[in-house]
Amino acid sequence: MPPAHAYAELVHRHGRLYRIRHAMAMLAWDRATLMPPGGVGARAAAEAELQLLARELRADPLVGEWLDAAAGEPLGDWEAANLREMRRDWLDARAVPARVVERRVIATASCELGWRRQRPANDWRAYLPAFREVVAICREEAGHLGDALGCSRYDALLQRFEPGINAARVAATFDELVSWLPALIATARSRGDTLPPLGTVAVDVQRQLARTLAARLGFDFDHGRLDESAHPFTGGVAEDVRITTRFSEEALLQGINSTIHETGHARYVAGLPPAWREQPVGAARSFGVHESQSLGLEMQLARTPAFCELLSSLLIDAVGERPAFAADALYARMTRVQPGAIRVHADEPSYPLHVIARFRIERALIEGDIAAADVPAMWDEQMARLLDLDTRGNHRDGCLQDIHWSKGAFGYFPSYTLGAIYAAQLFAALKSELGELDGCIRSGGFESIFAWLGARVWAQGSRFETDELLRRATGSALDAAPYRAHLLARYGHQA
Amino acid sequence: MPPAHAYAELVHRHGRLYRIRHAMAMLAWDRATLMPPGGVGARAAAEAELQLLARELRADPLVGEWLDAAAGEPLGDWEAANLREMRRDWLDARAVPARVVERRVIATASCELGWRRQRPANDWRAYLPAFREVVAICREEAGHLGDALGCSRYDALLQRFEPGINAARVAATFDELVSWLPALIATARSRGDTLPPLGTVAVDVQRQLARTLAARLGFDFDHGRLDESAHPFTGGVAEDVRITTRFSEEALLQGINSTIHETGHARYVAGLPPAWREQPVGAARSFGVHESQSLGLEMQLARTPAFCELLSSLLIDAVGERPAFAADALYARMTRVQPGAIRVHADEPSYPLHVIARFRIERALIEGDIAAADVPAMWDEQMARLLDLDTRGNHRDGCLQDIHWSKGAFGYFPSYTLGAIYAAQLFAALKSELGELDGCIRSGGFESIFAWLGARVWAQGSRFETDELLRRATGSALDAAPYRAHLLARYGHQA
Repeated sequence: MPPAHAYAELVHRHGRLYRIRHAMAMLAWDRATLMPPGGVGARAAAEAELQLLARELRADPLVGEWLDAAAGEPLGDWEAANLREMRRDWLDARAVPARVVERRVIATASCELGWRRQRPANDWRAYLPAFREVVAICREEAGHLGDALGCSRYDALLQRFEPGINAARVAATFDELVSWLPALIATARSRGDTLPPLGTVAVDVQRQLARTLAARLGFDFDHGRLDESAHPFTGGVAEDVRITTRFSEEALLQGINSTIHETGHARYVAGLPPAWREQPVGAARSFGVHESQSLGLEMQLARTPAFCELLSSLLIDAVGERPAFAADALYARMTRVQPGAIRVHADEPSYPLHVIARFRIERALIEGDIAAADVPAMWDEQMARLLDLDTRGNHRDGCLQDIHWSKGAFGYFPSYTLGAIYAAQLFAALKSELGELDGCIRSGGFESIFAWLGARVWAQGSRFETDELLRRATGSALDAAPYRAHLLARYGHQA
Repeated sequence: MPPAHAYAELVHRHGRLYRIRHAMAMLAWDRATLMPPGGVGARAAAEAELQLLARELRADPLVGEWLDAAAGEPLGDWEAANLREMRRDWLDARAVPARVVERRVIATASCELGWRRQRPANDWRAYLPAFREVVAICREEAGHLGDALGCSRYDALLQRFEPGINAARVAATFDELVSWLPALIATARSRGDTLPPLGTVAVDVQRQLARTLAARLGFDFDHGRLDESAHPFTGGVAEDVRITTRFSEEALLQGINSTIHETGHARYVAGLPPAWREQPVGAARSFGVHESQSLGLEMQLARTPAFCELLSSLLIDAVGERPAFAADALYARMTRVQPGAIRVHADEPSYPLHVIARFRIERALIEGDIAAADVPAMWDEQMARLLDLDTRGNHRDGCLQDIHWSKGAFGYFPSYTLGAIYAAQLFAALKSELGELDGCIRSGGFESIFAWLGARVWAQGSRFETDELLRRATGSALDAAPYRAHLLARYGHQA
């Protein structure tokens, strides 16, 4: 007998899950920012326990009955979209047997632990056995997911990050980028600027500057914190967003850029529809859309001559006059093209090529076209072809540089570049409606920009599939043309 | 059909609960130390959700079946003690209907919220309606607990803090204190020292000093943190103990004493038996035993001429020479007797009288001998009788001064003074075995003291009932004679 109010039961269940995820988010934040080293084992166990509790609530057979019954209930637009997202979550939770989930936890924990030693030691041979096990279990997991969703293994993994997309479309989009990006990079890098040195800036000064910048970009310190961690990230919940950055005396722009980037993520989280906060339809649309908001702030909004003027005045106020702090010197430094082996240090036009290499490798790996042991060779081949780099033998700065695969996060990488493409689409549309942004950037008043993003993206949550969200905001589904135009405008003239 | 390994099922269940409590402890710590103000609503909901999840696991009917079946399994001493504590937990979880738990959450949240405004405003009349509801629901809860345990309402509440004790025994113990404490205080206060002013000390300097002190007392910063909060507390888990203190430029000794106090709690938590860490038998024996460890460090160990010599040298190193930093001046200040209205500022011999007044009032309130509206009158009467204070009309510094009752924490107060009594018993026994402590305190080597406490108290967890724990450690069950001897030795000679 179907329950009388199946949809209401589902809403209640997802409220519980939201609150459990609040706890999970805060434990993860604490672990990355200030947990003492001796707490690591107990914390891993506590986080795994919450994960298990959440899985039990998500995969509960009752949820399946409620989903079927709710399909016959009269629902409004948002409710229907919520139901669609609930079904997505249910399929994901049910598809993978518990024993696979457990084996995956053990395999990835072991591989990640090894990676922390083996990466610095450049020791691929020692890394391989644990990685082979991660690949095996992730293939198995992806197979179960694919069976449930009716798609290939890698396509199934993509759904966790970019629901609705598939590998063929990602490949076509990325191949098109590869047809023109390397030439653009070759032209831009040939400029060879010599810029005045930035010099060192005390971490305390940078910390204050980061807070000022985040506040200028609308970060709400009553509903969030800015802290420090080895790798910047955005965590927490909409009511209490936790962003982190990192500071080094010698790397002023790293702290500034990561603060801007994470503030973009934070604005999205805080701007999600409050009425749907605890529900799947109130969550961020996808990892790519999330990245479009961080890259929107970092690359579209802040990496501009007008923003560099604002930044210049903030820096001069905080640190004093230096030639490198002139707005044009800052802009030249931020748009310098110097391809290198490390993704997280890559300049704007090189970055997608790093992502594309990883996409090709992980797709082949998960689909079974290559073995775990083949990764270094394919890595070297892709790096040579896409970025003209010789990475042979340097695993540390090669295929071991990222933690993602050790954690079993296959299918994540494409979101970085899809986000950059979405950001270009959104900002092109935004500028065509609001006019060029220089005026409001120069005055530090970003309200109209944030109001546009807030209405078109943040407040929409997961109401629409990504393509529909983009269509309503920009007139087009996924389309790399504005991204190309953006990069050409910024880097093409440097020839 | 009973399960094949019922005890093993119970162990597994309590492992899950330990890990959920890890999450709860960290959320509570975060809330009190660094959560932004806007996060309060979402955090309360997340903490309540974990509480509910834990309750579902504790009150699961399966647990009752396992308990019955496990009683017939062959178990060692520790396992049998574990089973005894598991049954205690089960009775507590099952006794109170879910609707009472829910009504209690709402009533106490509302009362606590009101208290935060009404206490500063000295507004008892505005406070009373919400407090009346808290008293009503706590009486109902206590009635259910009493039915399950076969005891009176207030006795039932005491079990949550001091398992095994009852109100009659607490009252007899406290009445005996009342027969000699006021005279001791009257004598000690008549001394009227004039001490050199401490002066102000920058918070940064105090912060460093607190870390040094905690480390000297064996706090392990690899498995814990020292932070700041409005009210000092010890939280976290054994693997990652979070203690907090508070600093004020004008109140140097407050930061020092609370650091020592919380370090005592932390040592107990970290010293609980590692092999039983996730199990009920591995938990702290009672709130009173917990307090015996914090007061053991603060009052027995640190409030001595020998420790004041160490403190004096640390202060002079950190701040420079001041007359008030001389060891004898520090000791005189720490042992000054100046009774006042506020419990948390009370001197050592006055403190139990504050507790006794609260015990008498809350016992009468829960047993139904007085109504919520009668609290101020009984407060004034007790304060006049026990401490010779006129508190009439000053609710802010009277019955509204503590948060405990607003949160529904009835039955907690006696543990403070039971802890002071246990601490005196333990340190009397410790000194009779190890000799006077001055030598090892003067050299800053506390190892033999901590080894004794570690073996007799910390490593015993909840293996024994409190009386048996005390008997094995000191030769006697609860006994206030060593406490009287301690206070007389420290304060009696001042006449």
